[in-house]
Amino acid sequence: MNNFTFYSPTYFVFGKDTENETGKMVKRFGGTKVLIHYGGGSVVRSGLIDRVKASLDAENIPYLELGGVKPNPRSGLVYEGIDLCRKEGIDFILAVGGGSTIDSSKAIAAGTVYDGDFWDFYCGKYIENALPIGTVLTIAAAGSEGSPDSVITKEEGMYKRGATGDAIRPKFSILNPALTQTLPPYQTAAGITDIMAHLYERYLTNTTEVEVTDRLIEALMMTLIHEGPRVIENPNNYDARANIMWAGMMAHNNAVGVGRTQDWNSHDIEHELSALYDCAHGAGLAVVMPAVFSYVMNHDVTRFAQVAVRVWGCKMDFYHPEVTAKAGIEALRSFLISLGMPKNFAEIGAKEEDIPQLVDVLCNGNGRTGTLNGFVTLNEEDCTAIYKLML
Amino acid sequence: MNNFTFYSPTYFVFGKDTENETGKMVKRFGGTKVLIHYGGGSVVRSGLIDRVKASLDAENIPYLELGGVKPNPRSGLVYEGIDLCRKEGIDFILAVGGGSTIDSSKAIAAGTVYDGDFWDFYCGKYIENALPIGTVLTIAAAGSEGSPDSVITKEEGMYKRGATGDAIRPKFSILNPALTQTLPPYQTAAGITDIMAHLYERYLTNTTEVEVTDRLIEALMMTLIHEGPRVIENPNNYDARANIMWAGMMAHNNAVGVGRTQDWNSHDIEHELSALYDCAHGAGLAVVMPAVFSYVMNHDVTRFAQVAVRVWGCKMDFYHPEVTAKAGIEALRSFLISLGMPKNFAEIGAKEEDIPQLVDVLCNGNGRTGTLNGFVTLNEEDCTAIYKLML
Repeated sequence: MNNFTFYSPTYFVFGKDTENETGKMVKRFGGTKVLIHYGGGSVVRSGLIDRVKASLDAENIPYLELGGVKPNPRSGLVYEGIDLCRKEGIDFILAVGGGSTIDSSKAIAAGTVYDGDFWDFYCGKYIENALPIGTVLTIAAAGSEGSPDSVITKEEGMYKRGATGDAIRPKFSILNPALTQTLPPYQTAAGITDIMAHLYERYLTNTTEVEVTDRLIEALMMTLIHEGPRVIENPNNYDARANIMWAGMMAHNNAVGVGRTQDWNSHDIEHELSALYDCAHGAGLAVVMPAVFSYVMNHDVTRFAQVAVRVWGCKMDFYHPEVTAKAGIEALRSFLISLGMPKNFAEIGAKEEDIPQLVDVLCNGNGRTGTLNGFVTLNEEDCTAIYKLML
Repeated sequence: MNNFTFYSPTYFVFGKDTENETGKMVKRFGGTKVLIHYGGGSVVRSGLIDRVKASLDAENIPYLELGGVKPNPRSGLVYEGIDLCRKEGIDFILAVGGGSTIDSSKAIAAGTVYDGDFWDFYCGKYIENALPIGTVLTIAAAGSEGSPDSVITKEEGMYKRGATGDAIRPKFSILNPALTQTLPPYQTAAGITDIMAHLYERYLTNTTEVEVTDRLIEALMMTLIHEGPRVIENPNNYDARANIMWAGMMAHNNAVGVGRTQDWNSHDIEHELSALYDCAHGAGLAVVMPAVFSYVMNHDVTRFAQVAVRVWGCKMDFYHPEVTAKAGIEALRSFLISLGMPKNFAEIGAKEEDIPQLVDVLCNGNGRTGTLNGFVTLNEEDCTAIYKLML
């Protein structure tokens, strides 16, 4: 196991009706003037924003609102948010929504207290300071409610890139599984797929002898396999929603990924798809993961066989472990399709003729130098072959 | 799943040579005058205390020392520590050792800033304030490095009782698995047993539909089953030590126990044994757990069958699940014996004729009112029968 540090100071408030605690939590963590940041109309129509406002009113905490976050959140709204926070003296950002809203909030929080262009952080600069952030989560997916990470798309060039720093870990996150019961099945499934991807990205490691994190990752994968079909069949299954919601946080606060190299090539390969075609990130990952894993499987057949046996219930073929490894990848593919996720380029609106452009932005855009350096180092030729496996 | 809050803000520094970061960590968390609290001579003889002091010297942080913590730490030294901290204006407690040293440090930290008798906290009063604490851990066992809990034995009456409060969660914990390589096999095994007990206490729940925490607990149990024999066979196996050390923290910071009722009857039943006979807590638990689980198994045969199949690899007897459930308990017993742990009263120096006294203190001492209220409510008759199963 490699040396590591782990720090996850977010205060989680989990369960029914917990959004009514928002005002108390903002007060506990020192907010005196809040920007409520959110996306489209659903959080307004459902009455959630009103309940959040009522809880702030009850604590006499003033607030402004900034809606309009889109899936695959854009830099334009971040700049707007930064200006607003500076002008209005905001000292606390409250994200009400999913990963896109939280990531946009993190970018605003970091950018507001930074002299330069916030995009610097998305080109590799570590985030040292930010306004405090709280979240009220409405979808189990990105894990941004417990992570130090944010992903934003820069409109000039459509670069989709990540930034990180302990300063953008939320001070608190409110997780009410009931808020996710109104999600359409497709978004629910895309969320589950994103969580599964966060687990595979950590599972695919070149560090040996990491049994505790292997086992913890497998535990969360098995939870999704058990609860995913139940929640698709009955969207109102509160307990299934709750298990998925905690799994989504645990998959990405890195408690299960410490001390080991991680992959993240699948995320990078997907980001180009959702940046160009604006598909749901999870839906893109459903197409990307089986392709990537098939392509890199021979780098460590044992690892793919292990997850196949332990998680997917495949029988070990001791003389032909590659058969078992492949069966595990096929089981993942079948599982995602069974949830209603797409299986190829066509189903997410992607086009074969765009592959050269996708590969070029992926491997050379925004400061990259020709390769992706995850579980396996992938060059342009590899990435081209991987995208072609998705046709 | 039940509503819950989860808060684990400890900064973990994990890996080789990390004890040399102690001074930097104390500085980061605001300590300006430190009490170094530790137990016997091993941390001195090994040079660990000298390395810790050197790291404090490097940051120009002054310190005093208070050694002498014993396993099953006593109230007398806590009172001494509180007096010392007040007299000397200590503002940070640094525990260098295992669970006993950390728990003693937590008691001193809470007691120093409290007007009344610190023992109030061990009679049920929640700990709201405490001096900040840091730890340098030397055994994977108690999980106190990441928990809000402390257990102390009051010398008048030999009551062994617990206290809790977020204020006593360590600000940082330094976990260097190499420091555990010099532990004798018996202490290593007792530590593994304690971790296993923390997992079973959480696993035995009356809350239904808790797949995510069930799976996470099982993951940590399987880690111990894999790594335990390896570390007993080769005490210098760093990776096995590392996996056990992270499992020990994860087993007890409660990330895997949220949203569900827990048991803790086994801990209460054991505490009377280690209080009276001064056996290692883990060794006592090795004797207690199979007895308790056999006694309460029929309360939820399915739960015991589930752990038997998923963790211990037992075959499910679908028509006779109680056979599977029992096989899982026997597998636990065999595993603990294989690590070198005791199996009955005689092997921990306990005596049948003391059972009435044990039961009386357990059920009626220090404010208790006749029953233990965990997974199954146990009265004096039940506890007598359980102790007799250990003969």
